[in-house]
Amino acid sequence: MKEIKFIKDLEKMIPCKKGIIKGIGDDTAVLPFTKDKYLLYASDMIVEDVHFKADDAPEKIGWKAVAVNISDIAAMAGVPKYVTVSAGLTKNKSLSYRKRIFNGIKKICDKFNVTIVGGDTCASEKMVIDVSIIGEVDKKKVVYRSGAKLGDIVFITGVLGYGKEKHLSFIPKLKESQVLSSKFKINSMMDISDGLYMDMTRLCAASKKGCLLYKDKIPVSRKPNSFDDACSYGEDFELLFTVGKIEAGKIEKYLSENNKIKVYNIGEILEEKHGLWMVERSGKKTKIKPKGYEHIKR
Amino acid sequence: MKEIKFIKDLEKMIPCKKGIIKGIGDDTAVLPFTKDKYLLYASDMIVEDVHFKADDAPEKIGWKAVAVNISDIAAMAGVPKYVTVSAGLTKNKSLSYRKRIFNGIKKICDKFNVTIVGGDTCASEKMVIDVSIIGEVDKKKVVYRSGAKLGDIVFITGVLGYGKEKHLSFIPKLKESQVLSSKFKINSMMDISDGLYMDMTRLCAASKKGCLLYKDKIPVSRKPNSFDDACSYGEDFELLFTVGKIEAGKIEKYLSENNKIKVYNIGEILEEKHGLWMVERSGKKTKIKPKGYEHIKR
Repeated sequence: MKEIKFIKDLEKMIPCKKGIIKGIGDDTAVLPFTKDKYLLYASDMIVEDVHFKADDAPEKIGWKAVAVNISDIAAMAGVPKYVTVSAGLTKNKSLSYRKRIFNGIKKICDKFNVTIVGGDTCASEKMVIDVSIIGEVDKKKVVYRSGAKLGDIVFITGVLGYGKEKHLSFIPKLKESQVLSSKFKINSMMDISDGLYMDMTRLCAASKKGCLLYKDKIPVSRKPNSFDDACSYGEDFELLFTVGKIEAGKIEKYLSENNKIKVYNIGEILEEKHGLWMVERSGKKTKIKPKGYEHIKR
Repeated sequence: MKEIKFIKDLEKMIPCKKGIIKGIGDDTAVLPFTKDKYLLYASDMIVEDVHFKADDAPEKIGWKAVAVNISDIAAMAGVPKYVTVSAGLTKNKSLSYRKRIFNGIKKICDKFNVTIVGGDTCASEKMVIDVSIIGEVDKKKVVYRSGAKLGDIVFITGVLGYGKEKHLSFIPKLKESQVLSSKFKINSMMDISDGLYMDMTRLCAASKKGCLLYKDKIPVSRKPNSFDDACSYGEDFELLFTVGKIEAGKIEKYLSENNKIKVYNIGEILEEKHGLWMVERSGKKTKIKPKGYEHIKR
């Protein structure tokens, strides 16, 4: 909650200026670009002992540093284009270790056709990699987390709870984002970086809405200790999105005929005054609390 | 020299892709934008105990984090527009301390009409702030460090040697860049972040040229222990640029009539095979070695 509070403070300190489509508060900033397109712009930092361990494979650390940023572009229905990479590395790291980090960075950039256009390295006691990213999005396609409408159906793009296991090698859901946004009208979207509980709360707060999620419809892995863990651990990087009822039917029909991507219908959007609820098959309702990923030391 | 080697390795690993005007290797990347303009894109990270001390005023730390990036845009003759700020802060830092950092960031952004459009904070044992920046530049005005021509006159925009004292509060030479690039044909330019010796070496290497600098014409502060310190300590963030002889005359004439900015004529560009030299009034010549700012602990 501290981070939410701090970002809220920042938003107050930094009002969105004239000419800027969207400043702080979504997965990326949205800036003027061409007649038909907006520029998307974001940055995400990963830090040793918070987002990875010193003995994790350096290729994977590099991969993750870029993957979290591509995920942010996917969450806006955009296409990633360029990244800059700033790496603070401990002095004892060999040139070959550094190259292995950059091999991981290069591998994901090649996979997603992203170009590395800037780099900066310096000494740091704990490793830290900050990546900034520029993407593009068709003006007609851009999706904000604030766009959820009353009665919308809530979807996620994959099973929750694999974050702990796969956070260093996850594949950003860019294909899902592109298929969905090119064929359907998505009302709101974001990526689940801090767990469903936390990020559903953020989406509802941005949209000024409430929600009802169906516990038995939320797909979770068997690995975590509990359903709660799968919804609060974070680092799954699935997309969370909402669409109108008719559009939801079209999506489900389309995906029954084309198995390119998967989506799971997990709930619906309510009025804000109703709050956020999880309902079990028995009918038992529990309030959803924004219990999120606290960047636990691994 | 390790950093130069590492960046050279990176350049080989990351060839400049089709459609990109300039990738890694200059003060910023240069990317396609509109009919008349390029997009400029860069990032720079500052780290506790390397670029600042934990007990430095937080407003100044925030100021510097953005200032080094605006300086990069100035070095390309561009106009800064947007920044993202990723801050890794130690857990014991109070909300008021964090706000003071962001007040410094906001102050410099307001001064240079730059908008903060993204932010990310996380816990880190040592403080680290990474800022990425987007700017714009007229296609006709953009200046690279690789453009120095044989016979060019070498200029700097200010006195060297104040880095140690003023590195947290320096004012990026954006006005100088704009006055110069709007009125004159600048052949090459970069900012002096790592000392004149190191950065003159970089400019000559990028341009495949040599140079002759006149020791008695290089303005240095009285503070550092020696002339050598002033030319190697770094963090002055003056602009280093070269122009043809006729243009140099025009600049000196213009500035004798308009005292908006200052420039110092410090040398000239030679053929690459002649190498890089410093000449004293006595005629004694010394080879310039890329002895640069080693991010000394302060």
